[in-house]
Parts: sequence; C-alpha cells; structure tokens
Amino acid sequence: MPKVSVKGQQMPASPIRKLVPYSDAAKKRGLKVYHLNIGQPDLETPPQFWNKLKNLDTKVLEYCPSNGIESYRKKFAQYYNNIGIAVDASDFMITEGASEALSFGMLSCLDEDDEIIIPEPMYANYIGFATVGKIKVKPIPTSIESSFALPPIEDFEKAITAKTKAILICNPNNPTGYLYSKEELLVLREICLKHDLFLFVDEVYREFLYGGNSFFSALNLEGMQNHVVVFDSISKRFSACGARIGAIVTRNKEVLASALKFGQARLSPNSLGQIAGEDLFDLGKEYYDGIIAEYQKRRNILVDSLNKIPGVVCPNPGGAFYAVASLPVKDTDVFCQWMLENFSYENSTVMMAPASGFYSTEGSGKNQVRIAYVLNTEDLKAAVKCLEEGLKEYALVDATALVN
Amino acid sequence: MPKVSVKGQQMPASPIRKLVPYSDAAKKRGLKVYHLNIGQPDLETPPQFWNKLKNLDTKVLEYCPSNGIESYRKKFAQYYNNIGIAVDASDFMITEGASEALSFGMLSCLDEDDEIIIPEPMYANYIGFATVGKIKVKPIPTSIESSFALPPIEDFEKAITAKTKAILICNPNNPTGYLYSKEELLVLREICLKHDLFLFVDEVYREFLYGGNSFFSALNLEGMQNHVVVFDSISKRFSACGARIGAIVTRNKEVLASALKFGQARLSPNSLGQIAGEDLFDLGKEYYDGIIAEYQKRRNILVDSLNKIPGVVCPNPGGAFYAVASLPVKDTDVFCQWMLENFSYENSTVMMAPASGFYSTEGSGKNQVRIAYVLNTEDLKAAVKCLEEGLKEYALVDATALVN
Repeated sequence: MPKVSVKGQQMPASPIRKLVPYSDAAKKRGLKVYHLNIGQPDLETPPQFWNKLKNLDTKVLEYCPSNGIESYRKKFAQYYNNIGIAVDASDFMITEGASEALSFGMLSCLDEDDEIIIPEPMYANYIGFATVGKIKVKPIPTSIESSFALPPIEDFEKAITAKTKAILICNPNNPTGYLYSKEELLVLREICLKHDLFLFVDEVYREFLYGGNSFFSALNLEGMQNHVVVFDSISKRFSACGARIGAIVTRNKEVLASALKFGQARLSPNSLGQIAGEDLFDLGKEYYDGIIAEYQKRRNILVDSLNKIPGVVCPNPGGAFYAVASLPVKDTDVFCQWMLENFSYENSTVMMAPASGFYSTEGSGKNQVRIAYVLNTEDLKAAVKCLEEGLKEYALVDATALVN
Repeated sequence: MPKVSVKGQQMPASPIRKLVPYSDAAKKRGLKVYHLNIGQPDLETPPQFWNKLKNLDTKVLEYCPSNGIESYRKKFAQYYNNIGIAVDASDFMITEGASEALSFGMLSCLDEDDEIIIPEPMYANYIGFATVGKIKVKPIPTSIESSFALPPIEDFEKAITAKTKAILICNPNNPTGYLYSKEELLVLREICLKHDLFLFVDEVYREFLYGGNSFFSALNLEGMQNHVVVFDSISKRFSACGARIGAIVTRNKEVLASALKFGQARLSPNSLGQIAGEDLFDLGKEYYDGIIAEYQKRRNILVDSLNKIPGVVCPNPGGAFYAVASLPVKDTDVFCQWMLENFSYENSTVMMAPASGFYSTEGSGKNQVRIAYVLNTEDLKAAVKCLEEGLKEYALVDATALVN
C-alpha cells in the first residue's frame, strides 16, 4: 500500500476543528454544545445577499477571471476608499476566502526554508499554509500579562536572519483579540524597511473594534507600497463564512502577478459568492454600528464573567471576536476533550479551542484556550456558567491536572 | 523592494488563460472572438440549480464541514452507485473544484522531489499543482499519430525510479480527448501494484463519450482500493464551472485523513455550490443523452472540418470536449497571439490554447493547439472557417513560420 507524504503527516490538525468528533458524539448523546471553538458568527447574513440570489437571471454559471469578477473588485476597492484607504480594483486579487489569499501570498513571496516571523499565539492555520510551502514559521512570544501586545523591536531583530522574508500579523488579532496601534505598525514599518521584508497583515476583523478604538491599516503606512500585502475576507464582516470569498490587496504588482499564476492553476474563485455579495459593500455605518454594539456587549459579558471564575485570567480584547484565557488546568487539550466526553451541566457542555495549536513553539499555551464570542448573550452566559461548573468538577476528578 | 519567491517565478502561466489580454484587446477593437481556448461549456446550468437558490430560506451562510456537507456527499455517492461504482459518502472529500482536489491529492501523497508520471500532452495545471509542492513531473510522450493512446508499459517501466510515487491520467483526456480503455487501465493497474504506486485518475469528463464508447472507472479496478484516487467535479457534467465544487474520491482512508488536514487549514469548501447543486445528482439518462448528443455533433463538425484544412491533422477524440490538432505553423504560441493581434475574418477571430503549455518536455507540441468544442455548431463552423483563413494569411505574412 503506497504511503501518504511526510508533508501530509506533518500538516497540523486544526485546533479549531480537531475535537469535532467529540462534539458530534456529545450531541448524539443529547447534549447541547455551546460552540466557542470556531469563529462562525451567528448574526444573519444581510438580506441583500439572499435577495441577489433570488433574483438571478443567469443561465450558465461560468468560471470568472482568475483574479475575480471586475465589477466585484471595483466595489471592493470602493469600500476601501470609503474607509480612507487609497487602492483601486487593480490592486485586488479575489480568492477563496482569506485562507487562499494567505496561502497564495506565502507561496508567492517565500520559498522552501525561507522564514516568516509571526507573533504567537497566532491563527493556527498560518502554520498549515506555511507547511504546504515548507516555509519556516519563526514565532516571537507575546504574553498574556501584557495582553498579547507587540513584542519589543529587539525581539524581532534577534529573530531576523538572512532567510527572513516576511513578518505576518493579524490585526485585530485572532486568537487574542489584541488590536495593534498605529505606533506598533510604525515599529513594524521600520523593521521591514530596514531589512527589506514583506509586511503581511490579515485585516479581516478590521471593523470589529470595541471601546471606541480606531483601526490603522497597514496599507496606509508611508513608503511601504511594495512591502505591504493585506489579506481580507467577507466572511466575518458580512457573516458570510460559507461564501469563501476573500482577497489579496497590495500595490506590489510583482506579488499580484505571481499570485495570479497560482490563481490561474485553480482557474477561478467561485462566482456565486461574488455575484451575491457585491451589494454588501454598500452597507453603511448603521450596519457596522449594529454588529459592533452586539459584539461589544458579548465581549464585556465574556471577559467579566471569565475573570470572576477562580484561577481564570482573560485580558480584555480591543477587537475581533476572540479572547485567549488561561485556565487553572495543566493541559487544555485534555480538558477541552474531557468537557465534551465526560461532563455536562444542565444537559449542556462547552466546546473551546485548546490554545496549544495556536503556538508554533512546542509546549507553549498549554493552559490556555481560545474562545470565540459568537453566541448571543444568553447562550454566552450559559456557556461561561457551564465552563465554571466544568472547571469545578474537573478539579475534583483529576486533581493532578491542576496547575501547582 | 522585497522579491517574490523563486516558486512564484517558476509557476507556469496558464496556456489556457495567458492570451486573455490579447483577446480582451481584440474585443475592444470590436472583433468577435470565438473562444476555443477554454473548457467553459455554453450549455445552460440545469434549472434545478437556480431554483434551489431562488427558494433558499437560510439565514446565515455558515462554514460547512471541511470535507463537505454530509447530505451532499451522500447524494454524490448515490450518483456513483447509480453508474456502478461502489463507494459511500465517507469515501468523499468535497473540494473547490477538481483543481483543489488535485492539489490536495498531490500534497497528501507526494513530497518535494518525489516523482509523478503523467502521459503528455497533459492538462496544463497538473504542472502548476506539482510546482506548489516542488513535486517532479515525469512526462511520458504520447503521439498524435496513435491518437495519444497510452504509451507501452515499457515506457512506464523506464520512467519509474525510487522517487516515483504516482501515475496520473485524465480519462477521458484533457487536452487530447483520448478515452482510455479498460485494457489500458489494467496495464496501469499492473504497473501500480508492481511498484506500489498511487494511480491518480481525473475523471471529470466520464459522461462525455462519443460513438457508443463506454467508460471504465479506475475505482472499479480490483485490488486497488488503496492505490486509486479519483478526482471529480460538477463543473463540466452540469455546466457549473463557477460553482467550484469538486471531490477527492478514494477508499484509502490515510489519503483522505491527510487531505482533510489540508482541507481544515482552508476551513471549508464553499457552501452555496453544494446547497444549490445537490439535486443535480438526480438528473437521469435523458439529461446526459442530451448533452452527449450535442457534443458528439460538435466533435464531428470540428474534427471533419479541421482535417479538411491543408496541413492540419486532428485525431478523432473518443471523449471529453477537447481535441489536439497539429497546424502547419512552426510555433503556435506565436500564431495564436497573431490570430488575436493581427488577424480578422468577417470581423471575427479565434482564440486557441497553444499546446506547448500542455507538455512538460521543453520544445514539445510547438505546432499543436488544444481546441475546446464548447460552442454551438454554427459558431464552431464559423470559428473553423476563421482559423482556415487565418492559416492562409499567416502563411503569406510570415513564410518563415511555416513548417519546412
């Protein structure tokens, strides 16, 4: 029997999805599972999307251009212009979600054994995309004590080698919710210009800002036209994850030309998501105010109630809809599985993503979880209560699993 | 300014799409361009697809499971059962078209510098997918004189090394239209069992058979459960290229588990194409008879009229909707571009795919083109007439471009 590739064996299983068989089994046993593991918003996809589909009079669902439908790219660019970022349709390549954008971005800019510096914890799938191209992820640790802020410039300088080609951040951050300030972006600008590195920024959560915070896009960094590559998606902004529509946005024409060849090999991104999604870029302040108010309410409930649980620490995230919390357990991989397999409270349990998968450094983040606050406030309260009860019971069942 | 990757530079531009700027320019000059370059069927996507979209009452367009929606995989498996292939939903992984299926299949089974044997000419994007994983394509030449039939077993034996992991064919073939017989598949079975190789078969055109030909699926080869990996798509079968829905179909659970990890990294295939496309698997004999009759008529017109042009040779394809023809010119890359830039007949011109991009061997196929017969019979006749006139004029303008 022929064997699968070493790469296939080395590909990390998703920390967000690897416990799915256990949650499926819990559901089969009749439990309600609160999904705090995945960034799947519960908010409705705006009606404009569904209406477009209902009123289609297309006859043949054709391939679209490899870089996306032109009218869609124009609308996407217009939305950028409206938020103060000067780009046009030719700076865009439409992809299958930000996932494909990140994958093409890495393959277009980095070769085997080239290095990409990423503050950790990091979005787990960055490690997977790097594995495809045998690109080396060089993590720089951030700490829960400093709310996962950008590490000092010295840490970057120490990590940079002749093989370093890029720095990647997610802003606001998945998994930590940390919002990088303009000052922190200026630090990254300085490093990238000094060492001639690409600055990759995943900005899919840029509207999700709380407490009056404001966002500074890497595309507005001066003198960085050829260095900045932004990854975007409509998944979270418009609660349309299943559309799988994202984009690479950059003024570096060589990067776009390279990415286009990867794009041509897969012919085109899906057409339906673009056709149905075009009008969503017309949504205005009222729409965004509504979703931000809802998520801010959820964040406040989550963070307040988590920090009231003995032994739990959760910094207050400035954006996105994730938080990384440390729990009073030794190994959250074991604990999260136990919650699904062996625990229930009021006929429910909670699914979380063990944070170990968001660290590229072996052994880091073992007592942390990533929590996505994508449930309505009632469910969110019930989920945190359930977690609290779970931690109590776990301490009794398995005293050895406790920290200290 | 940071530089793009060597891989990005090495990625081949698509021979199917690289002339698009010239066809766009021709259209801007007011010419009608007959597109024989791309396998974009003109037949209508069945109404079941559009009706499903019109009647959706979904509120949130969610991610689906990384291996696809379960009900969709069940329907897909049922369609296989109906055509005599015993597989079930657990043998499927749904992907973004056959493109992603092929890409995940290669990455799951082959590492850097591993070798995959592919008869050439071959579907151009196989070379692109291999480039992503730094996998070596080892071509085995087939010849226009033998209608691009499977090369003798000795040619495979000679090409196999310790690094060989897989043989890949497309059946019926893109670009040649050649339909591999059961006997030829038994030859491949023998080689794969002897050398413990994967047999990858791209079967997206399996219904497109002419002249009463019948199709033998690699999934029905005995004793090859762990060797055969089939790639499929709804793009051509249901004229739904823009849906980007394909599949890996294999009984090898290790391959599926490996592919699933690549799939988890990109979260999920798009949901809309699956939701809208589910009922298409219920289409019966009448539907397939209709499309086959139409394409057979087109094939006959194309092949007959091409072979009547002085100096043109085109074998009669047994399936798919492509043909590879040799033209009386020295370099079809130059000629195809010239047709778009410098020629018109009755205010029209023809776009074809130069065959050089379908060969991995440098310098092969220089006088060949791939033609997709995806136009209605009237347009197809006009396109061939236009090509005939183009060849006449080209012979006068550039006598040095002629063979001999």
